[in-house]
Amino acid sequence: MKIALDAMGGDFAPKNPIAGAVEALATYNDFSLTLVGDEPRVRAEVSKHSLSQETLSRIGFVHTTQVVEMNESGIQSVRRKKDSSISRSVDLIKKGEAEAVVSAGHTGALVAASIIKLRTLPGIDRPGLAVLMPTKTHVFLLIDAGATIDPDPEQILGYAVMGSIYSREVLGSIKPRVGLLSIGSEASKGNEFTKECFKLLSEAPINFAGNTEGHDLFSNPVEIVVCDGFVGNIVLKTSESLAKSIFGWLKSELHATPVRKLGAFLAREAFDSIKRRTNTDEYGGSPLLGVNGICIKAHGNSSPLAMKNAIRVARESIRHQINPIIIAEMKRHRESLAKN
Amino acid sequence: MKIALDAMGGDFAPKNPIAGAVEALATYNDFSLTLVGDEPRVRAEVSKHSLSQETLSRIGFVHTTQVVEMNESGIQSVRRKKDSSISRSVDLIKKGEAEAVVSAGHTGALVAASIIKLRTLPGIDRPGLAVLMPTKTHVFLLIDAGATIDPDPEQILGYAVMGSIYSREVLGSIKPRVGLLSIGSEASKGNEFTKECFKLLSEAPINFAGNTEGHDLFSNPVEIVVCDGFVGNIVLKTSESLAKSIFGWLKSELHATPVRKLGAFLAREAFDSIKRRTNTDEYGGSPLLGVNGICIKAHGNSSPLAMKNAIRVARESIRHQINPIIIAEMKRHRESLAKN
Repeated sequence: MKIALDAMGGDFAPKNPIAGAVEALATYNDFSLTLVGDEPRVRAEVSKHSLSQETLSRIGFVHTTQVVEMNESGIQSVRRKKDSSISRSVDLIKKGEAEAVVSAGHTGALVAASIIKLRTLPGIDRPGLAVLMPTKTHVFLLIDAGATIDPDPEQILGYAVMGSIYSREVLGSIKPRVGLLSIGSEASKGNEFTKECFKLLSEAPINFAGNTEGHDLFSNPVEIVVCDGFVGNIVLKTSESLAKSIFGWLKSELHATPVRKLGAFLAREAFDSIKRRTNTDEYGGSPLLGVNGICIKAHGNSSPLAMKNAIRVARESIRHQINPIIIAEMKRHRESLAKN
Repeated sequence: MKIALDAMGGDFAPKNPIAGAVEALATYNDFSLTLVGDEPRVRAEVSKHSLSQETLSRIGFVHTTQVVEMNESGIQSVRRKKDSSISRSVDLIKKGEAEAVVSAGHTGALVAASIIKLRTLPGIDRPGLAVLMPTKTHVFLLIDAGATIDPDPEQILGYAVMGSIYSREVLGSIKPRVGLLSIGSEASKGNEFTKECFKLLSEAPINFAGNTEGHDLFSNPVEIVVCDGFVGNIVLKTSESLAKSIFGWLKSELHATPVRKLGAFLAREAFDSIKRRTNTDEYGGSPLLGVNGICIKAHGNSSPLAMKNAIRVARESIRHQINPIIIAEMKRHRESLAKN
């Protein structure tokens, strides 16, 4: 397997992408990696790790001179910064020199480069970012977490089909249920957009569970929650921020007196257990579903562990090859709608 | 002051509304209360509390025969259930027999009854529900938490002006900042709707802080966060559900072994402190801003304490009378726009 890694993407690049790459290369021996970025800096970073000749032989380099900054427009970056590490990484897929790309860089730039260079799959107009969200009782896939800001209802249908296939083929769910994020459980509840989506999802070849409310997300599990990228991004960031805020708050309260500190020490395994389960680094990258290639988006502030796991997700996606299944299922659905 | 209480509204009616009313009557002696609902049931519930003659003399009754169920359409309920406790409560304001209404019942029915019977304020087309959200570092007002599902950008402008006035006049904030909930801090980030809103808010007579991301909600305080009622409701419910889920998770982990239990006991004050601060019961009801009257919505699952605090919020709203200020400020803004 050949994976391209955007070595300049993310808040801690090239350090963390390369540290994650080194961990992934040590753990999995079935892939080679092309590091895309400012080659002298990337090589300098690689040389900080003591790698065997065998490991070094699995690493390639592609030199790039540009980086997409966070305040740039994603779509303009593809046109104006043709030599960005994101664009060049996606180019490698197009040229058949990589089977998957992993980036912790600018989400909009990765989405735009993927759409422009790789195109979307037949039957899918816009891609959706599928993020795994851990809860006490389950893990669910939130699609779209921010790839497409103003989608049509047809695109939500695409997310539901693609999410179901990903959940089934890659995550091993059996008949995964799809919930439509809305503001009431009845079909009549929601805005004009979600009501349209509800109709389309009711006829789709998925296990549709109806509307999912904000209340249900963490208590009443479905395997896939679909929504537009604006709402999905807000839900993702609100949840991350609230969880972080609660744990930070708890920490400062637990350090306020010596007795509380002792209590926290005795109960530390409880906190560790939750921290482990909610550590998004363990979940790694999020697949951008619907583009004609495998693109894995890692969080901008990814740790080495998160980058390693994003590479793991890329490997799994290469192994499972769900794009042909998506194409076939969307085609079957269109044909069955045309018949009726 | 005269307050109408929907005694049949909420998951635990008439028990909790009446228990809350009894607490409020004991704590504050400057108001009288009309209990609206099935009079025999309401009187039976009242009689469970041993009230003095003086307190009883502050309680009135209005008998109603209908209750709006949670699965009904709010707007249809106003037409079809003219004798519902929500409708009759709002009627009391219209007839000048109450200065404020408090209900833990069906949000959509309260919103629809308020709009149809009381009308909105001049310059305001649709009301917004303003919910107080506690965080470690601050408290912010989220508007709209679900009163208006598909608003125009002009309505978001109204929420920003009304929220600023409420924050200033009732909560005592000095120059409260308004953030527009979106998916990136730059003005260019967001969907078509929020970009329109951004323009309007930039020219509004408010302290506009630009876009607020999901990440910022709990860490980077503004005093008011505005968004459409669909997104606001999802953010509110997601946050409530996630916080509850984390604390529940923590509890079960802390009870897993005797050592952890001991630790949790020693550290209990840390948990209590956070629980108190995040206990939405303390914040009471949420004002429905923009209708020509004072309507306070309490959470459907309100405890007696939450109902008591919703009545407190109604008292504060009567005392501060912000509706004339809203009318004047919206008028001034329209005139200033017309001049330029």
